Amino acid sequence: MSSASQTRVRIGVVGLGGATMQLLPSIVADERVVIAGVVDADERARRDFADDFAVPAHESVEALAADPGVDVVYLATPHALHADQAVAALAQGTHVLVEKPLSLTVADCLRVVEASRASGAHVVVGHTHAFDRPVRALRDLLDVGDLGEVAMITSCNYGSFLYRPRRPEELDTRLGGGIVFNQVPHQVDLVRLLGGGLVRSVRSSAFVLDPSRPTEGSHTTFLDFEGGAAASLVYSGYDRFDTDELTGWIDENGAPRRPDHGSASRALRALPSPADEPALKAARGYQRGWTPPIADGHQHPHFGLLLVSCERADVRVGPSGLQVYDIDGMRKVPVEPVAAVPDKTAVLDDLYRAVVLHEPSAHDAAWGAATVEVCEAIVASSRERREITLAHQVPLRRPAVPVPQDPAAQGA
Amino acid sequence: MSSASQTRVRIGVVGLGGATMQLLPSIVADERVVIAGVVDADERARRDFADDFAVPAHESVEALAADPGVDVVYLATPHALHADQAVAALAQGTHVLVEKPLSLTVADCLRVVEASRASGAHVVVGHTHAFDRPVRALRDLLDVGDLGEVAMITSCNYGSFLYRPRRPEELDTRLGGGIVFNQVPHQVDLVRLLGGGLVRSVRSSAFVLDPSRPTEGSHTTFLDFEGGAAASLVYSGYDRFDTDELTGWIDENGAPRRPDHGSASRALRALPSPADEPALKAARGYQRGWTPPIADGHQHPHFGLLLVSCERADVRVGPSGLQVYDIDGMRKVPVEPVAAVPDKTAVLDDLYRAVVLHEPSAHDAAWGAATVEVCEAIVASSRERREITLAHQVPLRRPAVPVPQDPAAQGA
Repeated sequence: MSSASQTRVRIGVVGLGGATMQLLPSIVADERVVIAGVVDADERARRDFADDFAVPAHESVEALAADPGVDVVYLATPHALHADQAVAALAQGTHVLVEKPLSLTVADCLRVVEASRASGAHVVVGHTHAFDRPVRALRDLLDVGDLGEVAMITSCNYGSFLYRPRRPEELDTRLGGGIVFNQVPHQVDLVRLLGGGLVRSVRSSAFVLDPSRPTEGSHTTFLDFEGGAAASLVYSGYDRFDTDELTGWIDENGAPRRPDHGSASRALRALPSPADEPALKAARGYQRGWTPPIADGHQHPHFGLLLVSCERADVRVGPSGLQVYDIDGMRKVPVEPVAAVPDKTAVLDDLYRAVVLHEPSAHDAAWGAATVEVCEAIVASSRERREITLAHQVPLRRPAVPVPQDPAAQGA
Repeated sequence: MSSASQTRVRIGVVGLGGATMQLLPSIVADERVVIAGVVDADERARRDFADDFAVPAHESVEALAADPGVDVVYLATPHALHADQAVAALAQGTHVLVEKPLSLTVADCLRVVEASRASGAHVVVGHTHAFDRPVRALRDLLDVGDLGEVAMITSCNYGSFLYRPRRPEELDTRLGGGIVFNQVPHQVDLVRLLGGGLVRSVRSSAFVLDPSRPTEGSHTTFLDFEGGAAASLVYSGYDRFDTDELTGWIDENGAPRRPDHGSASRALRALPSPADEPALKAARGYQRGWTPPIADGHQHPHFGLLLVSCERADVRVGPSGLQVYDIDGMRKVPVEPVAAVPDKTAVLDDLYRAVVLHEPSAHDAAWGAATVEVCEAIVASSRERREITLAHQVPLRRPAVPVPQDPAAQGA
């Protein structure tokens, strides 16, 4: 084996549903990582995946994490399982890539923080839209300092989330259903990345507008940051207005699309029985012979309208890059073309840095816990109609050196 | 005189600056109202205006209000003068149309409320963008009830306000300068109109980002309404990003425009001396021989991105009308073409109703006081970094019958 191949991060996949299908194109396109094993409750999907990738299928997260050919377990499982699965892997010294939210309570998240600290194994919480290349490009631009300190962040996203096919528990807030633990973590993560991480307090109203989907489907939230920045977060998953109207009809994953207001709702209404909905969802998981989508006018993933106002400039973040506005006018700061469809390569940047270079991700377990704390506070603020002050926030950790794209350049 | 002409509302204008220049086209286009007198501190402007309109020039608001040929004084004067001038006119039984804000403190506003109550003369506070035809069309649509209750209101507006030419006091928050008492009242008024009027609490951060313009130039604010609706208000006047980018480059007054990020800032920077700035502002006041602008692709005034999410539909309010999104897709609800440039006719609707039909405006003195209370709370919440609960809110007053457009139809 070459020295480059020796540094490839070997990923064991846990869960072959929608999140994995979103990350898989970036994994297979990236020389720094390789699929090394799989766990899934669905025997058919697990076998198909193991065959297609020529990797071992395991019966449990513990067995996968114990496989000496696996460096990282990627947890793309129901939220309520994340903490126990992460702790189990970390206890064996295996690194963890876990989908947001890290868990459903801060208390559970802190168990993961402690397990990571005790074992020395790393945790990366992602993908969230904080990993989108244009968002990262803005974070880098902010670090240069020319724009001055961040003052206001405005994140507004409308889509069809609540009417995508769901399992019953995904419509129960107590079990991690609804937008607060599924979509809001994207917003919280990206505004924390841009605002420095330390949210001081939260004031929010969240709404349950459809009795047939009895969980929060929209919210409007004010975040006050230590240091004085503030953010407005607005989200609706009710499949009516769509903020893709404001971004040239490029969808959340960067794909060109057409307007289809209400179509997800109508598709659900057309089902013969509500019991058919989980099967629709399952059909979105791994299918034998899968090949990655080909880029065809694709741009980067985004999360709706994102405006950041600094001391000396405003920035609009879009799917193809940044627009920076100041006294001299507007200039575009493009980002590189997509490396996958959708392009979630930045998650693998962080994973590679953590596992190979021993540099913790900004999106480590403590960061993920802080994001969950904001989500919990959104629920509490809305129910109690008062401002909630936070206690578990952590500042943004910045990488010391540029991210290497070419593992061969690292030596071994 | 015909019976129709006898019902024309006779308006005495006080102040020939920017606000009057914005309302004048609607006044001269509207058969229900007529200019009947003028007061201005600038003798040249006052004489020119009196000559052009063949109306008497008066030395004071009191003298204008005492003129038996004047039904209403229109106060387009510096904010700090509004309350005393309104009280003086009301004491003589003369109705008052007053630009926002009604005054700079709730206490001063309540003096106007009391004077109006004691005299029986009406107060209309406007123009604000709550009078924009598309906003009123949405209010009417909400009253029909098909959309359900309002949940979230999102108002986001970026423009060049802070770099338009200013007098020194307009850059001092204590004297009513900055965005909080000049631009934020637009947002507060329109979200209160759509949210029902009763704001329960305010959480805000406001920002002073340019030391050379030492007053608030941007804010992000959360409003909780009695009844459970909530609003996000974001505004920046720093002449960088411009939300007209989101509305097809139709400007705040409905005029087609081109992008010119930073041009207002650059124009100020190019002045030989800061002392030249007030003269630039004065040049925007009344000029002899004025004629109203001709409509040429003009749409209705607007205040940036405005989204309203109800129980069963979302609505985007734009300069040409409404877009309503629900399970059946998107439908456009156009409003009538503009009647003036800019079209502020709805202010005159309310004035006519109050003076001729004795129906108080929704935007009466108590309403204006409640809007100022929200603005005061924005300053307090930002400085004290806490949620502020309100005490002077009033509910929206709804008209009982449609607004008459043709005074002849009223009889006399």
